[in-house]
Amino acid sequence: MKAREIHLTEYPKGEPTLDTFELAEVELPEVGDGQVRLETLAFSVDPYMRGRMSGRRTYVDPFPLHDTLDGAAVSRVVDSKHDEVPEGSLVLSQHGWRDAAVALGDAVRVLPELPVSHTHFLGALGLTGFTAWVGLERIAELRADDVIYVSAAAGAVGSIAGQLAKHKGATVIGSAGSDAKVARLRELGFDEAFNYKTDPPKDALGRLAPDGLDVYFDNVGGDTLEAAMHYLNNFGRAAICGMISIYNATEPPPGPRNMSNIVSKRLKLQGFIVSDHWQDDFQTFAQQVSPLVIDGTIQADETIREGIEDAPQAFLDMLSGNKQGKMVVKVGE
Amino acid sequence: MKAREIHLTEYPKGEPTLDTFELAEVELPEVGDGQVRLETLAFSVDPYMRGRMSGRRTYVDPFPLHDTLDGAAVSRVVDSKHDEVPEGSLVLSQHGWRDAAVALGDAVRVLPELPVSHTHFLGALGLTGFTAWVGLERIAELRADDVIYVSAAAGAVGSIAGQLAKHKGATVIGSAGSDAKVARLRELGFDEAFNYKTDPPKDALGRLAPDGLDVYFDNVGGDTLEAAMHYLNNFGRAAICGMISIYNATEPPPGPRNMSNIVSKRLKLQGFIVSDHWQDDFQTFAQQVSPLVIDGTIQADETIREGIEDAPQAFLDMLSGNKQGKMVVKVGE
Repeated sequence: MKAREIHLTEYPKGEPTLDTFELAEVELPEVGDGQVRLETLAFSVDPYMRGRMSGRRTYVDPFPLHDTLDGAAVSRVVDSKHDEVPEGSLVLSQHGWRDAAVALGDAVRVLPELPVSHTHFLGALGLTGFTAWVGLERIAELRADDVIYVSAAAGAVGSIAGQLAKHKGATVIGSAGSDAKVARLRELGFDEAFNYKTDPPKDALGRLAPDGLDVYFDNVGGDTLEAAMHYLNNFGRAAICGMISIYNATEPPPGPRNMSNIVSKRLKLQGFIVSDHWQDDFQTFAQQVSPLVIDGTIQADETIREGIEDAPQAFLDMLSGNKQGKMVVKVGE
Repeated sequence: MKAREIHLTEYPKGEPTLDTFELAEVELPEVGDGQVRLETLAFSVDPYMRGRMSGRRTYVDPFPLHDTLDGAAVSRVVDSKHDEVPEGSLVLSQHGWRDAAVALGDAVRVLPELPVSHTHFLGALGLTGFTAWVGLERIAELRADDVIYVSAAAGAVGSIAGQLAKHKGATVIGSAGSDAKVARLRELGFDEAFNYKTDPPKDALGRLAPDGLDVYFDNVGGDTLEAAMHYLNNFGRAAICGMISIYNATEPPPGPRNMSNIVSKRLKLQGFIVSDHWQDDFQTFAQQVSPLVIDGTIQADETIREGIEDAPQAFLDMLSGNKQGKMVVKVGE
């Protein structure tokens, strides 16, 4: 039995291109004891994967070249030799960029059957939703009376972060890279939203946050972080989730010119990676957020691309912001 | 009755000079009900005062021009109309840069008579020692098995921070701006010490901290912060106490070029100002640290300048690092 996979052909310098990827066909092994065979329904393309394409070890190992790429996937179990993973069950795995796989049963997590799209287990109810929750709850320690600014707010993490913050009672400002996305943020209940391409954060935040910011949820870094630090109030907190503005940079860009604000305003800038929090907090997150996604309080925006052949373009579009909410590649039903 | 004071003549751009200051003579008022008359024994010149000379409000009000400057002082009460502040008592006040003052009794703190120099109430047992303690305990959450790097380690705060960290069990690396200061750090028990002028932190730390840093106590900012961020381990913490490298800057310098480390290594950079912690923690600090200063476990280095006329030069020397430990101006016995 064969599976189709996406492999990496090179470690790109600067922006990856379609040539960075190749489609490969591989022979699947037999299902051994304790193993399961998975048919992929959908897999995730995420910003953190760009770091794994650098060829250097950061907080996760680099992707190998010409070999199977991993990443979050939702699959159906079609054959099982593992007692706790029955045939027919829906599972989450890290078996990523392929349409079928043989996996250790212990390496997959059986998912509940909820009245939501199963792609949401990759997004609002998976890695990205949990990332938003950890950033707000565990890093920024968001309070109901806070004013929070979320950059890349129409993105997968940002759109959930903004809605969760709003649900908590905070005043929420978001930025995105097109007027359509900005309009969508308003629909999602953001109090204020602006297009950072035509309305730079260093101007927009002064206008939209006249009493300053208490929390900044940073998906962008660079000048946007500098602007946020300018407007953060005393004891302001920045949850540093990602710095997509510099992921494709070939030279390390300088940091904010206003670092002295960290002292004078007693700011806290703290980075985080969601996998550190899985063990302690994922259950709490799932219990809190699942009902909100089911009843529509939290709207889980998705951009769905069809077919494994489209995964490389989906990844490039995700990096360049050419999508709304969570980018998912669908490869089965 | 007259007092002599140091006033500010202008808000300096860049480095202050002696012309930034003037010596003035003022008439003291009578001692009214609830008031005390103080004869200053010594007062403090501190880096944070440079910020108050900017003419802009930061976290404290700017100093007024041609008027009394405040700051920490140890004084003897020579006349009292306040029940709880007896004549003859030693007090701490914020009546700073002058040799005598009339003050509200409620605005001074009666000090214990300890077998240490009373100037230590301005240093190791006062604002600066407390600053070191807060940075380690409340901000960096220092642990006994941490490796910590302290910049400006021969300075008032740095030298106490390094010794407190050592007393706790941590491995302590310090940097200073002369070989004599570096030698002094070794005498004070620092595990490693280097001269940052001849041995840049980006090289020295790699050699002296082969297993990386867990904590950085930052008094300097700039390139030193960038180097420390490079060597901080996962979950490293930087207590940002001051950024003396940029206090005299006329253009805001760019921040570290390696800000993406904040995410990949889950760093926490947190600024603090000691006055926020006075209420909650000063007693704990005094109880913990006073015995260590009395028995010589913590050595409280001081540079003493004599006479109020020397205060401006003492301040300039403090800013440029031309001193060892805490800089104090002595104006009485």
